[in-house]
Amino acid sequence: MTKHRDATKVQQFNAVELIRAKRNNRELSVEEIRWLVERYAVGAIPDEQMSAFSMCVYFNGMSREETRALTLAIADSGSRLDLSGLGRPTVDKHSTGGVGDKITLPLMPLVAAFGPAVPQLSGRGLGHTGGTLDKLESTQGWRADLSTDEFIEQLHSVGGVVCAATTDLAPADKRLYALRDVTATVDSLPLMAASIMSKKIAEGTQSLVLDVKHGAGALMTDIADARKLAETMVELGSDAGVQTTAFLTSMEAPLGYAIGNANEVQESIEVLQGGGPSDVIELTLTLAKEMLELAGVRDADPERALSDGRAMDKWREAIRAQGGDPDAPLPTPHETHTVIAERDGVVIGENALAFGMAAWQLGAGRGRKEDDVSHSAGVNLHVKPGDSVQEGQPLYTLMTDDETRLAGVLNALEGAVDIASAGPDRQPLPLISERISIDTIG
Amino acid sequence: MTKHRDATKVQQFNAVELIRAKRNNRELSVEEIRWLVERYAVGAIPDEQMSAFSMCVYFNGMSREETRALTLAIADSGSRLDLSGLGRPTVDKHSTGGVGDKITLPLMPLVAAFGPAVPQLSGRGLGHTGGTLDKLESTQGWRADLSTDEFIEQLHSVGGVVCAATTDLAPADKRLYALRDVTATVDSLPLMAASIMSKKIAEGTQSLVLDVKHGAGALMTDIADARKLAETMVELGSDAGVQTTAFLTSMEAPLGYAIGNANEVQESIEVLQGGGPSDVIELTLTLAKEMLELAGVRDADPERALSDGRAMDKWREAIRAQGGDPDAPLPTPHETHTVIAERDGVVIGENALAFGMAAWQLGAGRGRKEDDVSHSAGVNLHVKPGDSVQEGQPLYTLMTDDETRLAGVLNALEGAVDIASAGPDRQPLPLISERISIDTIG
Repeated sequence: MTKHRDATKVQQFNAVELIRAKRNNRELSVEEIRWLVERYAVGAIPDEQMSAFSMCVYFNGMSREETRALTLAIADSGSRLDLSGLGRPTVDKHSTGGVGDKITLPLMPLVAAFGPAVPQLSGRGLGHTGGTLDKLESTQGWRADLSTDEFIEQLHSVGGVVCAATTDLAPADKRLYALRDVTATVDSLPLMAASIMSKKIAEGTQSLVLDVKHGAGALMTDIADARKLAETMVELGSDAGVQTTAFLTSMEAPLGYAIGNANEVQESIEVLQGGGPSDVIELTLTLAKEMLELAGVRDADPERALSDGRAMDKWREAIRAQGGDPDAPLPTPHETHTVIAERDGVVIGENALAFGMAAWQLGAGRGRKEDDVSHSAGVNLHVKPGDSVQEGQPLYTLMTDDETRLAGVLNALEGAVDIASAGPDRQPLPLISERISIDTIG
Repeated sequence: MTKHRDATKVQQFNAVELIRAKRNNRELSVEEIRWLVERYAVGAIPDEQMSAFSMCVYFNGMSREETRALTLAIADSGSRLDLSGLGRPTVDKHSTGGVGDKITLPLMPLVAAFGPAVPQLSGRGLGHTGGTLDKLESTQGWRADLSTDEFIEQLHSVGGVVCAATTDLAPADKRLYALRDVTATVDSLPLMAASIMSKKIAEGTQSLVLDVKHGAGALMTDIADARKLAETMVELGSDAGVQTTAFLTSMEAPLGYAIGNANEVQESIEVLQGGGPSDVIELTLTLAKEMLELAGVRDADPERALSDGRAMDKWREAIRAQGGDPDAPLPTPHETHTVIAERDGVVIGENALAFGMAAWQLGAGRGRKEDDVSHSAGVNLHVKPGDSVQEGQPLYTLMTDDETRLAGVLNALEGAVDIASAGPDRQPLPLISERISIDTIG
């Protein structure tokens, strides 16, 4: 009887009262949060109220229950995909974003080569970390926008797909993320966690591996903050029935040698051909093994799939399925400029943030979401931390279509490669420092 | 040389960076704050950014320099009035708002009767505290909207005027206040202080007396908060060349017996005729004496001006100058309902907030700024704290044009008059507890 009355009652709250409640650090109910998100998604709550609310969340945080309610309300703001008809396990990966982070490109075909479906809905770059879709669009003919039917069909036929989310997937997140971007509320832990996990829950994946980055080039510089974000997202996934684990990985230095778009595709192909930089290989294999384990694939040998061409075959299949030509030459830049070492020594650091900003400013990223990117712009590193260098040896090459951008970028990169006469006193954090699952959270 | 370059340089800041700076508790420069307000006033910074910024101010506060910069930037968002041509001293009063606070009505003519010009730009009610213009509009024919020329002409001819601010007076405040109202950032001390003082500075008054209220029916319930607000405003006024003093006054119980519109005009006329409630008289005389002293009027005897009809004559003159008929009957309500005492005892408290909300809900105030008010709606109290009452004696009368509103209001007023078998253990705070001037601030 009580239940019936609750279910038919139309909940009515007041947006100002909910902002004030959060401002005064009162915990909101599931119904209050759902009402706020639903009304915001349809435009009945204006941006100025949602930005004030988001700033209160920035200052006062959210309880686990509040964060869960926010995440599910955002997931339910559009239609949820149902991938259960695929007849095979589904497993996705999400990275919180880093410089030179092209891991999705070799990872998707590598995992799909073993049978699981990999539904990799991705984004475009805004800021210094680049976007997976921008990178893939370096490939002639490849298109990012698929309908839901095309997306599911490709999961059937190929087993893996990287594409843009449809407008109907968690639309409240799209509106809220754009708002947070212009109101300095991006770096709020519960808002970040809800944004990421709402989309993964709506996407319908059975399992998910998170790559949560920390360090100079990541959104969270501190590993403790990254751990808290990872734990929150693992809990959110588990609560929503998505088997979720996370790795904390270092983003002090860029991943691999290539930072940009076409050059990152090129480096990914090298990995898929059994070569490539050791850090990119290490991270790709670690994530692939975890994804395969969550998908229930036993006795998989992903190292072998990189060397024997199976992963590369799957890459070519996926690129072709989206209209791309895997054999077409990649675009090349109009201007390049190489910076050389001024003295002998050992590279003890490469500032990921500085190189990410450089690639962005050379044209690889966009300042506003309406802007186009240059697919050939970016930076190629020639050395990595730990390498010995000699005076005159090339350190990195800047690439752009617009030579007027070179001077400013060169200036900003002053000291971005840290060369010492001897190696560092302390070992840097390992690339992959922790694995977090629901069982490891205290 | 440096100065010249600074003056010609076009300052360009980034709104997101300024929000982030305030969020991270960095002190903003005068130029940054001015840029923000100027851009907001012309619509170049959207509401969602300003509400996020305001929420950061709510959490992190503002330094004295920041608050001053904000106040002056808002004052300069429109044109400032110049009242120096009047040839007589100008003195204004501002109250932070209370229940039954009709003090402006007797005060303006009382002070103007002694010669100073009293430019009393007032507002309309939104919420439980009522608005001076709404009250005066109970008077047949009286109009609140004057042009700047009419306003100055009336200061010449009559010496006192209560009217609405023109749209060109501190327009940034109008936009910002409306925004704060819907984003739970009204009760931020620096934002309150800047809102009030920017308008008074733009209005061009030479001196100003502030009535800063504290208690159940005030915006600030705590006297320490009220003191901080008063000190901030006295400093802002002094810094801007406006001689400013403040009184801290109690708003635990309503002022006088009348709460509403026409009934408050009626009570004000009683004071102007030498009668009226003792608390209204006390506050009116205290503020009048302070205003006359700031205006340099010596040997004034405002008690006498109330009893001998001089203040009343000025009232009639001012009402007529704005088209009003001081002899027309005031509107009366369609429905009244009187609540009686259920037992003998002593009134030890009357909840100002409860009675303010009651008058509002009976129709005396508006829910949205587009709404009309009922001029006859409100509450008439029949007893005051300290009075002895007997069972069956009338406590208060509710007045409305809409009888359906009575039941809910009666319910909400349960216990609003606190009757004890004996007097209170402790004396309540006096009506007027402190006078604050630039010399009393430590």
